[in-house]
Amino acid sequence: MNYRFYNARILTMETTDIITGELWVQDDKILYVGEGGDVAVICQSLSLESIVWDREIDCNGNLLMPGFKNAHTHSAMTFLRSYADDLPLQDWLTKQVFPMEAKLNGEMIYHLTKLAVLEYLTSGITSIFDMYLTPETTAKACVEMGMRCVQVGAVSGQENFEQSLKTMEERYHSLNDFDPLHSYFIGFHAEYTCSKALLEQVAEMAHRYQVPVFAHISETKAEVEGCKQRYGMSPVKLFDSIGMFEYGGGGYHCVWMDAEDMDIFAKRNLSVVTNPGSNTKLASGIAPISEYLKRGINVAIGTDGPASNNCLDMFREMFLVTGLAKLREEDAAAVDALEVLKMATVNGAKAMNLPDTDVLAAGKQADIIMIDLHQPNMQPLNNIAKNLVYSGSKSNVKMTMIRGRILYENGQFAKETDVEAIYRKANEIIRDLS
Amino acid sequence: MNYRFYNARILTMETTDIITGELWVQDDKILYVGEGGDVAVICQSLSLESIVWDREIDCNGNLLMPGFKNAHTHSAMTFLRSYADDLPLQDWLTKQVFPMEAKLNGEMIYHLTKLAVLEYLTSGITSIFDMYLTPETTAKACVEMGMRCVQVGAVSGQENFEQSLKTMEERYHSLNDFDPLHSYFIGFHAEYTCSKALLEQVAEMAHRYQVPVFAHISETKAEVEGCKQRYGMSPVKLFDSIGMFEYGGGGYHCVWMDAEDMDIFAKRNLSVVTNPGSNTKLASGIAPISEYLKRGINVAIGTDGPASNNCLDMFREMFLVTGLAKLREEDAAAVDALEVLKMATVNGAKAMNLPDTDVLAAGKQADIIMIDLHQPNMQPLNNIAKNLVYSGSKSNVKMTMIRGRILYENGQFAKETDVEAIYRKANEIIRDLS
Repeated sequence: MNYRFYNARILTMETTDIITGELWVQDDKILYVGEGGDVAVICQSLSLESIVWDREIDCNGNLLMPGFKNAHTHSAMTFLRSYADDLPLQDWLTKQVFPMEAKLNGEMIYHLTKLAVLEYLTSGITSIFDMYLTPETTAKACVEMGMRCVQVGAVSGQENFEQSLKTMEERYHSLNDFDPLHSYFIGFHAEYTCSKALLEQVAEMAHRYQVPVFAHISETKAEVEGCKQRYGMSPVKLFDSIGMFEYGGGGYHCVWMDAEDMDIFAKRNLSVVTNPGSNTKLASGIAPISEYLKRGINVAIGTDGPASNNCLDMFREMFLVTGLAKLREEDAAAVDALEVLKMATVNGAKAMNLPDTDVLAAGKQADIIMIDLHQPNMQPLNNIAKNLVYSGSKSNVKMTMIRGRILYENGQFAKETDVEAIYRKANEIIRDLS
Repeated sequence: MNYRFYNARILTMETTDIITGELWVQDDKILYVGEGGDVAVICQSLSLESIVWDREIDCNGNLLMPGFKNAHTHSAMTFLRSYADDLPLQDWLTKQVFPMEAKLNGEMIYHLTKLAVLEYLTSGITSIFDMYLTPETTAKACVEMGMRCVQVGAVSGQENFEQSLKTMEERYHSLNDFDPLHSYFIGFHAEYTCSKALLEQVAEMAHRYQVPVFAHISETKAEVEGCKQRYGMSPVKLFDSIGMFEYGGGGYHCVWMDAEDMDIFAKRNLSVVTNPGSNTKLASGIAPISEYLKRGINVAIGTDGPASNNCLDMFREMFLVTGLAKLREEDAAAVDALEVLKMATVNGAKAMNLPDTDVLAAGKQADIIMIDLHQPNMQPLNNIAKNLVYSGSKSNVKMTMIRGRILYENGQFAKETDVEAIYRKANEIIRDLS
């Protein structure tokens, strides 16, 4: 399909300046971003044949920008949303989450992931970095619905969600690039769910394939203290000592890192994926984002799973990233809003190895959202980029396009999506499991 | 107009149980809330004549609940949204906000308030507790648009926004109950903008009229320290020592209160209006909400003005109230979501002296919102009330009714509202003032 978006404001994220003009999409790619005008003249200047448009969309001055990258999630945990909130963390995990997850199967995860995908689309999220139990069915749900998905292995020795290295290695081959919308990273769950021998095997695999590794790292103070008791060093130092990050990667959460940990992240060019909604709701703490930025560390943003957040909304996360940093540093100037926009787009794409989705430019993948500026929370137009972070809401998402397909527009999902059937299924699953 | 809402879920907030049934509105009031069924039979059981409906609305299982009470705001500050963010608080106030406000006039405030009212409606906010410079034009804007508004005097000796006691007393007579949608409280800006003599005059007026008093109280650590230097005691103790709260009232923000301050609030039956979005963005700190609740203090929620938040969204505030309390107490069980829903509705109505708007019950004012449960962030329906607080969004607000008038429905404002003209005016004003 060929789309012409005209009369648009465009935030390419190559810079944070906003241009006025047009954006053209041909099939899965962006063909042109630039000033508006006579289509024939622009075609000529680009040495293009004339184009037959499937749709020409008057943006009415609304904003086009790259879709958000949700760089850490467990999509299928939708079934536990609001199932057991307001509990102490350990009770929540051990008495509610783990026993329920033990009953899940791949088909359930397929359906529950679809519910999450609907929610991502309403929030302008165009790619996700997912870690969960049956990556095959997560991949199936995402690809069927047109969602771009990077999955990561979750090697662990934990009884409830054991995942062997062998299984992960098989998936590394079967799930990587099986569809243009899907890729697969190796990873492990967390230090506290793996033996040192297992961690060493993951590191060995990273060396063998020369690939990055991701894991939950330093999410809670208790996790870091436990690791220090076991090994006499922090999780980051432990991982580094066994060569885990020789080929890059990074950590989810990273709330409790000390200066040496951060220096390792900087030196190894690792990504921090911050999850402020989850860290807030589970009382895990406030990540030292200003410190990461000072060191030039790549910071991306994730929602974490919907059981611990409880929503999959990049606008809430963006406000929290800067807001919590301001509280932590006692400085209203901490973490500029423009930096946060970069985290939610460009930095996420970098962490997820999706370089074709980071900015709006000719040749890049058409992962594009349209933000409705004709809503009161976006007015006046003093500073559109700051409005996005400080007053933006998923209600402003007017369109979500992934790989050149419009999957959500004006509050409606693609025609072929049976939304009510997805809701019914999710409710059935939690009823059956309870 | 007579409305019949059927096929509804209803959260009356008399309890947090959700009932299934009908809600009827006659003119400005709720006529019936209860089980569904044959209209004639229900009428008979209530000894009602048969009713002619202007509209019968199939709620399709969506949720009706009382509208949110935004218990602290400065509506007209919309013009400064994203005008000067990411600045240290003192620079922001003295170099940006105060000089710009000095140029505002009543007509500008009228137009800028209208922009805020649009935003309130999108977030299900049905009444506001507003403090600003020209209450006459704020009242005019609200009443014209159908927004319920309680205003509060802002006596101050500050050069930029001086307001005399005499002016406030005149307004107390002219603006109280001049319209069923409007009322007026006495109040002062804050300790640090008033002399002690002026504070004593406010207290004297409160005694004379036997009325409550509201003010910004203990918003920042610096404010409390300054007061202690000036008077040897905290703002709350100073106010109490001069009898300010003999007839009740309360404080906005209340971030930095000590145990004695809280005990005074409890003893005097005062309300805390917490503003977590603003306190976060301006790095003012986290209010001790759990402590307030332990003492049985009435806690309500406000957005504060859009220049310091920057949005007027009760869903963001509700998440922050409980989320920040969890971080502060390092306890994921702190401040249950149901408590937060009460703050945003019943407790707000109490603080604002709007007892007819607190819950959905026969005879109460028809200030009602409909929440769309057919969106992915509200599924599955494990716990609808918790979903509202933890995953709810203004995108779920399907309808906002105030005093029996539908002012916002399915993303559209009332026909007579020229939305684009309001946006144009707001942009003109900030352009002219810059």
